[in-house]
Amino acid sequence: MKIGILGGGQLGRMFIQEALKYDDAFYTLDPAEDCPCANISHHTKGDFNDYQSVIDFGKDKEVLTIEIEHINADALEYLEKQGVNVIPKSSVVKMIQQKILQKEFYKKNHIPTPDFQVIQNKSEVDFPLPFVQKLNTGGYDGKGVQIIRTKEDLGNLWDAPSVLETLVDIDKELSIIIAKNQRGEVAAFPVTEMVADPKLNLLDFNICPSELTEEVQKQIAEIAALFIEKVDSAGLFAIELLLDKEGKVWVNETAPRLHNSGHQSQEGNRNSQFEQFYRVLRNLPLANTEATGYSGMLNLVGEQGFSGKVEYEGLEEVLKDSKTFVHLYGKTETKPGRKMGHINVVAHTKKELMDKLIAIKSMVKVKSINEKVK
Amino acid sequence: MKIGILGGGQLGRMFIQEALKYDDAFYTLDPAEDCPCANISHHTKGDFNDYQSVIDFGKDKEVLTIEIEHINADALEYLEKQGVNVIPKSSVVKMIQQKILQKEFYKKNHIPTPDFQVIQNKSEVDFPLPFVQKLNTGGYDGKGVQIIRTKEDLGNLWDAPSVLETLVDIDKELSIIIAKNQRGEVAAFPVTEMVADPKLNLLDFNICPSELTEEVQKQIAEIAALFIEKVDSAGLFAIELLLDKEGKVWVNETAPRLHNSGHQSQEGNRNSQFEQFYRVLRNLPLANTEATGYSGMLNLVGEQGFSGKVEYEGLEEVLKDSKTFVHLYGKTETKPGRKMGHINVVAHTKKELMDKLIAIKSMVKVKSINEKVK
Repeated sequence: MKIGILGGGQLGRMFIQEALKYDDAFYTLDPAEDCPCANISHHTKGDFNDYQSVIDFGKDKEVLTIEIEHINADALEYLEKQGVNVIPKSSVVKMIQQKILQKEFYKKNHIPTPDFQVIQNKSEVDFPLPFVQKLNTGGYDGKGVQIIRTKEDLGNLWDAPSVLETLVDIDKELSIIIAKNQRGEVAAFPVTEMVADPKLNLLDFNICPSELTEEVQKQIAEIAALFIEKVDSAGLFAIELLLDKEGKVWVNETAPRLHNSGHQSQEGNRNSQFEQFYRVLRNLPLANTEATGYSGMLNLVGEQGFSGKVEYEGLEEVLKDSKTFVHLYGKTETKPGRKMGHINVVAHTKKELMDKLIAIKSMVKVKSINEKVK
Repeated sequence: MKIGILGGGQLGRMFIQEALKYDDAFYTLDPAEDCPCANISHHTKGDFNDYQSVIDFGKDKEVLTIEIEHINADALEYLEKQGVNVIPKSSVVKMIQQKILQKEFYKKNHIPTPDFQVIQNKSEVDFPLPFVQKLNTGGYDGKGVQIIRTKEDLGNLWDAPSVLETLVDIDKELSIIIAKNQRGEVAAFPVTEMVADPKLNLLDFNICPSELTEEVQKQIAEIAALFIEKVDSAGLFAIELLLDKEGKVWVNETAPRLHNSGHQSQEGNRNSQFEQFYRVLRNLPLANTEATGYSGMLNLVGEQGFSGKVEYEGLEEVLKDSKTFVHLYGKTETKPGRKMGHINVVAHTKKELMDKLIAIKSMVKVKSINEKVK
């Protein structure tokens, strides 16, 4: 089958890698000639934000999907009307692209999400401190989100359409990946727990399973079921959740695609999120998502102070451990904070898992020998 | 790293698929424009049997390897002298390419192999019946091998340089895959047992681990250790073994590359033969080869009577089983006996494994809707 993907980054790369065990032809649209998918797919260099580029790319594909949500959704809508099988639906992508619509979707469908005010500009702010400001569009990897704690912080407010949201007193950051195929079968992965790096605001450790009370698990199951029912589209979705200190679960935001919080499924679950996504696109029976033990993931991001041709420190040591798995994204150039790869760990106990992740974090560095940024 | 592969078939495809989790660039040389590696590597259409084609392809690669042994080994030798890192060494490829040299290698190094006579033409035959005739060159997938049982069969003898070999009274057909990296580390996979389809002479089921006495395991370990020592080259090798009814193990032949008998390692072992081969080529610490339970593999070969655009029957049913894994090779055209893919099964017991493999074999068919060969 001809499967088109808007975006040619690492999510697409790992998806294609997994799906190479079947007989499909993969096409990617990405502006970067050397994007991670370039050499393993039929790659078209082009702008996935450009209406005509998306239409030209998508019109002859049997299934069209995304690996990044910041794409031209109007073009997706047009293609849908022309009969292209777009997964997820353009309406869902549009809703998720805009934080304001996304929040309103949760509210309308009684999906618990922190209280919020919608503003078009900063003169409209009328919301109790402290709060989180999320730009309506363009946020990604923690960009476009800031915490306003004090009156002084109000001076930092972005003067743009945004959601202002009650700051949750976070106990845990969680994620659940849930998939629906085109015949309506639904399957979720076990909940994972994120440990963020406060400096970079990029997902850092991601462990599975998260140790949660039955009551919390029940809340999450209800949220996921409600979301997948109301969103009314085949697809694979990552619902990012916040567990507050009183044991209540809130939806932070959702990605309508493969997600960093599911990478540990490559070796930690019977099937990975990538295999599951393939089954969604081909409308096959959904895969077993069971965890086979404890597992965790550590992002490899470019070290501060290094830029240029990437050099990894400590990887060989990591490869000696038979329960540790290196995944690099085929990016030749590093820069501070750039996601270059990740390492998965499987373990029998949570302690074994955490000890290893911490050891690896201090051992593996993403540097560059050629240049050092001043 | 620029890694060149002579051949662009399924072995190369599954190798590249596995190795996509690292940051290398893969180049393949294969005469078929639509070979399984074509769209996932930098593919050069060309003849790997042609001296100049191999040199032109290989001269700028940092590592050059093979996924088929019927290639121009003189070109490999030339490139080696020019400083290209050829794995395995051209001398090993030459020895294995020619059954006569291969048999003499075993004899010289006291590696147990059935008694044999070398002939240049059929007038030289002076060997007790029954025996196996193996053509010196060109044998592949069971071709170029025949059994001569009776005086009447002597009329079928091929009139070409061959090895005539004592027919072993086979109890089991076994295989061991063993790897050596460039720093001399050696690791073997658990022994697998083959069950051949007598009609096609293509590997059919391959199960792991094989239930063997300690005495037999000891013989195999000694053979593998002796082979890897004497062959004196980094590489991954599949040693095909025959266990006779008296409990003695003989080497049948060796492939200097990834092998069909190692496919079940994709889901049945901590690491697959493909991961191990990557580590050989990059001179990394060898991977843990432990089996995680029982596992088995079933080849998907084109049904007799069907030719043309491939259609798989029964695959969807197989995908519902969470311990069953489908691997297709990206070949669009089937023909009788063509290897199109394989299915791996993992299980807790041997009975569970065999029951599933047998059920899958009767359920999954490789056909073609468009054409039926008369």
